[in-house]
Amino acid sequence: MPELRRDPIVGRWVIIATERARRPSDLSHCPPPPQPSVCPFCAGQEDKTPREVYASGRPPSAPPNSPGWRVRVVPNRFPALKIEGELDRQAEGIYDRMNGIGAHEVIIETPEHGRQMKDLSDAELTDVLVSFKARILDLRNDLRFRYTLLFKNHGQLAGASLDHPHSQLIALPVVPRQVIEEIEGAKRHYELKERCIFCDIVGQERRDRTRLIFENDELVAFAPYAPRSPFETWIVPKRHESNFEAEPKERLGPCAQALATTLRRLAAALGNPAYNFILHSNPLRDASSPSYHWHLEVMPALSQVAGFEWGSGFHINPVPPEEAAEFLRKVQG
Amino acid sequence: MPELRRDPIVGRWVIIATERARRPSDLSHCPPPPQPSVCPFCAGQEDKTPREVYASGRPPSAPPNSPGWRVRVVPNRFPALKIEGELDRQAEGIYDRMNGIGAHEVIIETPEHGRQMKDLSDAELTDVLVSFKARILDLRNDLRFRYTLLFKNHGQLAGASLDHPHSQLIALPVVPRQVIEEIEGAKRHYELKERCIFCDIVGQERRDRTRLIFENDELVAFAPYAPRSPFETWIVPKRHESNFEAEPKERLGPCAQALATTLRRLAAALGNPAYNFILHSNPLRDASSPSYHWHLEVMPALSQVAGFEWGSGFHINPVPPEEAAEFLRKVQG
Repeated sequence: MPELRRDPIVGRWVIIATERARRPSDLSHCPPPPQPSVCPFCAGQEDKTPREVYASGRPPSAPPNSPGWRVRVVPNRFPALKIEGELDRQAEGIYDRMNGIGAHEVIIETPEHGRQMKDLSDAELTDVLVSFKARILDLRNDLRFRYTLLFKNHGQLAGASLDHPHSQLIALPVVPRQVIEEIEGAKRHYELKERCIFCDIVGQERRDRTRLIFENDELVAFAPYAPRSPFETWIVPKRHESNFEAEPKERLGPCAQALATTLRRLAAALGNPAYNFILHSNPLRDASSPSYHWHLEVMPALSQVAGFEWGSGFHINPVPPEEAAEFLRKVQG
Repeated sequence: MPELRRDPIVGRWVIIATERARRPSDLSHCPPPPQPSVCPFCAGQEDKTPREVYASGRPPSAPPNSPGWRVRVVPNRFPALKIEGELDRQAEGIYDRMNGIGAHEVIIETPEHGRQMKDLSDAELTDVLVSFKARILDLRNDLRFRYTLLFKNHGQLAGASLDHPHSQLIALPVVPRQVIEEIEGAKRHYELKERCIFCDIVGQERRDRTRLIFENDELVAFAPYAPRSPFETWIVPKRHESNFEAEPKERLGPCAQALATTLRRLAAALGNPAYNFILHSNPLRDASSPSYHWHLEVMPALSQVAGFEWGSGFHINPVPPEEAAEFLRKVQG
């Protein structure tokens, strides 16, 4: 059983994933994992994954775990957290631990192995976002879970181990610190101004336009004022909404368009870089918040975290966001 | 002039290092920088670095920037921050910026190119720690600086660009978030218990012994209860002391011994891995604190930061610290 352990000084949680454990001798060199000879995420290989928890595109009469799907969600075969069991919160002297209970799922974005998320049509990518929403709505019924983090690792430098296009979701029994910090920062702004800070940011970026990359009726994509890495891009809805899963389907289409445009332009500008994206939304079952605002953060994997970043939480970025945005406004992608 | 920019939501600072700026086309592939044909950190090459700010080992009559030194500290030729100028704090709409004022120095740990920090004798490594202390004491006289972060990147995977053994120091005009979080967490514990949390941790680790790696009269080295990465090791003085620079020289010898032992054992256990270490101490000019406690954090560069870590602040660690510590207790190094 994996374990969740809390650092007693700063409150950072760590997953001790004992079932992924490796011996010290396995750690001394890290060759990229070999791609399996048969990709378990391809159409026709449905029996190579755990049984699906969601699929779209099949006729209602077709059985689950058969081909014919457009998007398919399955439990991760090597989960960081386990779905069965109780949290069993305990003290170990001055330390805190609980069982590593959670869900770890893989969203297979297309049955076709050779495509990438950026190559999906707006309709196909909308289907992927619909699956994100469906999984969040399902997992929030499990009262053990407090947060669902949706993310994507694309390319080996960004931590991907399989080439077939996929995103991932980890449902957690605690709200992660990174999200708590955003929620609390936004709350402080709201207490001072009675306005959402993300709405204020969207307003300033649309007026300044120097960091703006793309906008449609519903969302803006821009380089944030203080980006951690070169070409970091945020995608934020213009209307205030704290919970991604509350967005009606007609707003997921424009979201797919903004995400696809961002990914295509980053690919054109930087030669198809490895990247991560993450979806930050309000915690599960929390009522709609006037101060928090869901958004996507896209980060090309171009910079290295070294001693200074570990020790300070500062980041050093050699590319001003105004230059990155100008480049991404002009590039064809 | 580099710029310091603050994320308005979570308060994270970013250095926009425009003088290190690269064009997007330079970012798409990151080959390791070639080692210069003549190493500027070697004895006899003193004219290849900016003029030294500290050196030990030369007779008092020898001129600065000449050979004969044991440890030599020079400004970084490509500094992330600039030493000259005023902070000039400004608002840009809802955002905050200031000039990137700071010091960025390189501590050359030995004149010999082919050695590593782990190969230094206890006396040689004590000299390095004495230079850390001397630089902090000097920089704290500059009232623009609030914090001095000392760190080391060893090996290319940990962000080192030159092979010659060296550490680095960045003096900052703000206290970094990572340090503020530790100070505030420790303060909360102190308010509750009237005890230092680091002293409590040292006490529990010395009683439990399952995570203990090494101890001498003055310090303990142990695997922390919630390590971010496999084989993360903390080195903490047993006596309460918040400020590293307040340690008398006779306690820096045992500190060098604990650090050298840790580095040698990590090298033996993991095949000379890339690693980072950082020194966390109380902010410059802050009075001695009953709740905070200086320490070293050593992190082998064995794990990758991907979407989940970026988005959550959680870390997934496949090696329980009890197993890492058992291995490091037994290994010959």
